[in-house]
Amino acid sequence: MSRTDGGPGAGGARPPLAILAGGGAFPLEVAGEARRAGREPFMVGVVGATDPAIEAYPHVWVRMGEVGKLFAALKDRAIAEMVIIGAMTRPELADLRLDWGAVTRAAGLAQLFRRGDNGLLAGLAAIIEREGVRVVGAHEIAPRLLAPVGSIGVRAPSREDETDMAFGARLLRALSTFDAGQGAIVAADRVLAIEAAEGTDAMLARVAEIRANGRLRLSGLAGVLVKAPKRGQDLRLDMPAVGPKTIEGAVKAQLRGVAIAAGRVLVLERALCASKADAAGLFVAGFAYPPTAG
Amino acid sequence: MSRTDGGPGAGGARPPLAILAGGGAFPLEVAGEARRAGREPFMVGVVGATDPAIEAYPHVWVRMGEVGKLFAALKDRAIAEMVIIGAMTRPELADLRLDWGAVTRAAGLAQLFRRGDNGLLAGLAAIIEREGVRVVGAHEIAPRLLAPVGSIGVRAPSREDETDMAFGARLLRALSTFDAGQGAIVAADRVLAIEAAEGTDAMLARVAEIRANGRLRLSGLAGVLVKAPKRGQDLRLDMPAVGPKTIEGAVKAQLRGVAIAAGRVLVLERALCASKADAAGLFVAGFAYPPTAG
Repeated sequence: MSRTDGGPGAGGARPPLAILAGGGAFPLEVAGEARRAGREPFMVGVVGATDPAIEAYPHVWVRMGEVGKLFAALKDRAIAEMVIIGAMTRPELADLRLDWGAVTRAAGLAQLFRRGDNGLLAGLAAIIEREGVRVVGAHEIAPRLLAPVGSIGVRAPSREDETDMAFGARLLRALSTFDAGQGAIVAADRVLAIEAAEGTDAMLARVAEIRANGRLRLSGLAGVLVKAPKRGQDLRLDMPAVGPKTIEGAVKAQLRGVAIAAGRVLVLERALCASKADAAGLFVAGFAYPPTAG
Repeated sequence: MSRTDGGPGAGGARPPLAILAGGGAFPLEVAGEARRAGREPFMVGVVGATDPAIEAYPHVWVRMGEVGKLFAALKDRAIAEMVIIGAMTRPELADLRLDWGAVTRAAGLAQLFRRGDNGLLAGLAAIIEREGVRVVGAHEIAPRLLAPVGSIGVRAPSREDETDMAFGARLLRALSTFDAGQGAIVAADRVLAIEAAEGTDAMLARVAEIRANGRLRLSGLAGVLVKAPKRGQDLRLDMPAVGPKTIEGAVKAQLRGVAIAAGRVLVLERALCASKADAAGLFVAGFAYPPTAG
């Protein structure tokens, strides 16, 4: 992040903001957007997960389970709003270093481990809000990071691509019922891959591999990566995202393009995404979502 | 296959049988069962795909697209029934070596390439049946290969495992609508992986990998592989199957077990599957399917 400090922000009246930063570059991009809007964020890094570059901002490091330390730091700075953003590995109970603050909130924490991923994050948010800190979405702090309707870059989806996009979006909605499916790769009414615990990058690598080894035989660029949030997914907590790495993966998988739910998917380093897609002849496009009312 | 020839079969009155053999060991196992029942099969091997061990039986080799040669061979031997079994790679039109027999059936063949996988096989079956050869399922010829209800091997699923099995079966049924999903791996209401074009073995390897690299954190044996046919899937053409390789993959993925739809999934080398599962402490069990009426 090489943006200059400060900037003519219009958000002076808004309360102090913290960013609970998971892995990857997203937390820093959101922090940059917050700073740009005149809202210097307080970063909470998770030891072993978060990029040390967050130290460019006011920050604290916590270990998984140091719940008391986290809330004490938020209270010290009168933090009233928090964004949770970046890759989070679901911890095992045995891995947690519970401090006293965790023990006093034990009942709520224990519940987290009896739910799916949606439930895990929702429970975490509930615990945070019980402390008087409002959990807000990265898209509220950094709306410029949201996918627009239409193309990023020069290519637009063809009519066939739009059929694939609609098919993929329907598939993802059907998977929502099972708290699964933030992504799928489809080609001409055919499902090539569905994302679950492995994540989007691994799914893309898999399609590249089965095309290379001949298990999946398609000519030229074929297939569309479709990404959308799960139905009922709390966008404050677990927003789908794409970035340059996603585009690189789509290029290696020889896809025709990447389709993302407009307003529901974050785009990291948009200009770089566009130039990478343009160079390879892929489209990257936001589509209106949900595909049907509801 | 080291079985002795002949055997006291009761099927002497049944018409000559051919087996169109894809890749893997399944065609040979079905051939062995047919021979055991006193019905010596005529094997059709696909160059580059089929195990040359089929040459232990009367046989012919064809290339993809040599449709005329295939039907001439069937006619020569008055073949009236054919099983299609084994791994098939969906060919690209450009890869086909079309012979005159293919050209005269071109309209039917062209249609195959405008459908999903179900459609591809259904179209192939229709073309074969138009020639007066009835397409039968491997399970009709070799019913002993079908999954039973209950455990193969010593372990039985726990109540939690049965909950996973039911959850996985519901997920697979939902995916059926999209002509996808013959397999999934679930653990405690959580979807870990969904099978699409990569196949079951690759899905198992992926779960092993994301457990090893820490992306997916689970303690001890966790998760159940659930396999069932797609709704509306023509079991004559594309029967789900498990074998020793599946069990090995499940062991490497540290699953608790493998659950298969009884009467709807073929089990290759059952005794070996059981011994491998027993040695690793996994269950392999058939469950009543469909989970709900319909």
